[in-house]
Amino acid sequence: MKSIGIFDSGVGGLTVARQVIELLPNESVTYLGDTARVPYGNKDPQTILRYALECVNFLLSQDVKMLVIACNTICAYAWDEILNRVSIPVVGVIDSGLKTLLHVTKNNKVAILGTSATISSGIYPKEIKFRNPLAEVHSIAAPLFVPIVEEGFMEHKVAELIAEEYLASLKSSNIDSVLLACTHYPFLRKVIEKALGEKISVMDASGACAKEVALVLQEKGLQATSMSPKHRFFVSGSASKFQQLGEKFLGKKIENICEIAL
Amino acid sequence: MKSIGIFDSGVGGLTVARQVIELLPNESVTYLGDTARVPYGNKDPQTILRYALECVNFLLSQDVKMLVIACNTICAYAWDEILNRVSIPVVGVIDSGLKTLLHVTKNNKVAILGTSATISSGIYPKEIKFRNPLAEVHSIAAPLFVPIVEEGFMEHKVAELIAEEYLASLKSSNIDSVLLACTHYPFLRKVIEKALGEKISVMDASGACAKEVALVLQEKGLQATSMSPKHRFFVSGSASKFQQLGEKFLGKKIENICEIAL
Repeated sequence: MKSIGIFDSGVGGLTVARQVIELLPNESVTYLGDTARVPYGNKDPQTILRYALECVNFLLSQDVKMLVIACNTICAYAWDEILNRVSIPVVGVIDSGLKTLLHVTKNNKVAILGTSATISSGIYPKEIKFRNPLAEVHSIAAPLFVPIVEEGFMEHKVAELIAEEYLASLKSSNIDSVLLACTHYPFLRKVIEKALGEKISVMDASGACAKEVALVLQEKGLQATSMSPKHRFFVSGSASKFQQLGEKFLGKKIENICEIAL
Repeated sequence: MKSIGIFDSGVGGLTVARQVIELLPNESVTYLGDTARVPYGNKDPQTILRYALECVNFLLSQDVKMLVIACNTICAYAWDEILNRVSIPVVGVIDSGLKTLLHVTKNNKVAILGTSATISSGIYPKEIKFRNPLAEVHSIAAPLFVPIVEEGFMEHKVAELIAEEYLASLKSSNIDSVLLACTHYPFLRKVIEKALGEKISVMDASGACAKEVALVLQEKGLQATSMSPKHRFFVSGSASKFQQLGEKFLGKKIENICEIAL
């Protein structure tokens, strides 16, 4: 039984795995986190591409039926190259996220929240305007959100204050939808929604990506036929460190973690 | 005229360079930041050692008269190896920081604040107890402090709230001194002092390291004779990114930045 291969530079992509597992309970997932080399965001484009292709090759060796790129940096720098090289379907967080955003917006005025690396890559505004030349895109770098989530401060007053600080400019704009363009941000959804007020819709790229996975599996007739899914986790760094934070991200116990060299 | 070689995995070590330049205005500094491979904290010990020795070899090729290891992770994993390999004096943030801490404490009850990597390495308690078996050491991991500083939120209410959260347990302890064992933390000194109250002395490893540099230069008769110091900066990643954050850390303009391959 073939599985869905999901990969990221670290633990963040587990929010995609989590939503895939919830949405498609019969599917098996093979997750790869390149935790020894995380973060990719500050590496040069050639290095990111090389690392991404090493991840792809590893997952292909595990006989997956689909690749899910659960990492904004990899999607920004290696998307075309990966599409050109593999013959199985590929789904990515950027592509899925912006499709959802463009479906949801009514006034074509949208905002993207992401890490500094994602925002400074300019990939979202470029791709959004390519698909909808009328769109107006506000880009907000929110670098403190990732450490806030990893440190478990999501419910803390600190998260609220930071969200208010980052999002103040959006509150007074006339955007109607915001995309959480980082796999860590779904944990801050409530705080972000509160800071933005009721009139702005918030959607997350991880959820959008999981829905896209379901659509593509159906389209290609690749759905699981068995009812006994098996999830496996591979990391290039420490398994115990991955397990600790990973279980919070996945929302359940992680049992099969294997350390590999990439 | 030979310079003082200072190195770190990123920009943090510039707080050491800053204090060296302030304390020793005639000395020239050659700084190396391995910004392409930062952070070292999540790498395995062999990799950290290999990267550290590459940094050392680069600085030796620049004809420095002294090596300053301005990075806690490198000190924790490569200190002995570097001491064994080079013939010029070596000063490090850990060694300098804990010497100062042990000089200042009156009741032998101290605390260390550091990143998760530094705290989980256990290096400070081990080295402190080796030098003073009576010492009682509290270790506090404060992972949000680095992103708070890099994001420029040092004066924000957020920094105060985070400091209160991390330091609550120390306030009710009977420690009399705290070492800021991360090169980013000097920027949060005021907030940390406020959260700890007046009875606890706060000292930072960057300042301790600069004083140690001055002492060793004098001891070895290596002080600069010229009055026209020249500072040079080398990075393995992007020069422009380094300059942007680096000028805040150094507290002055950075002009000579050269990108190198390590």
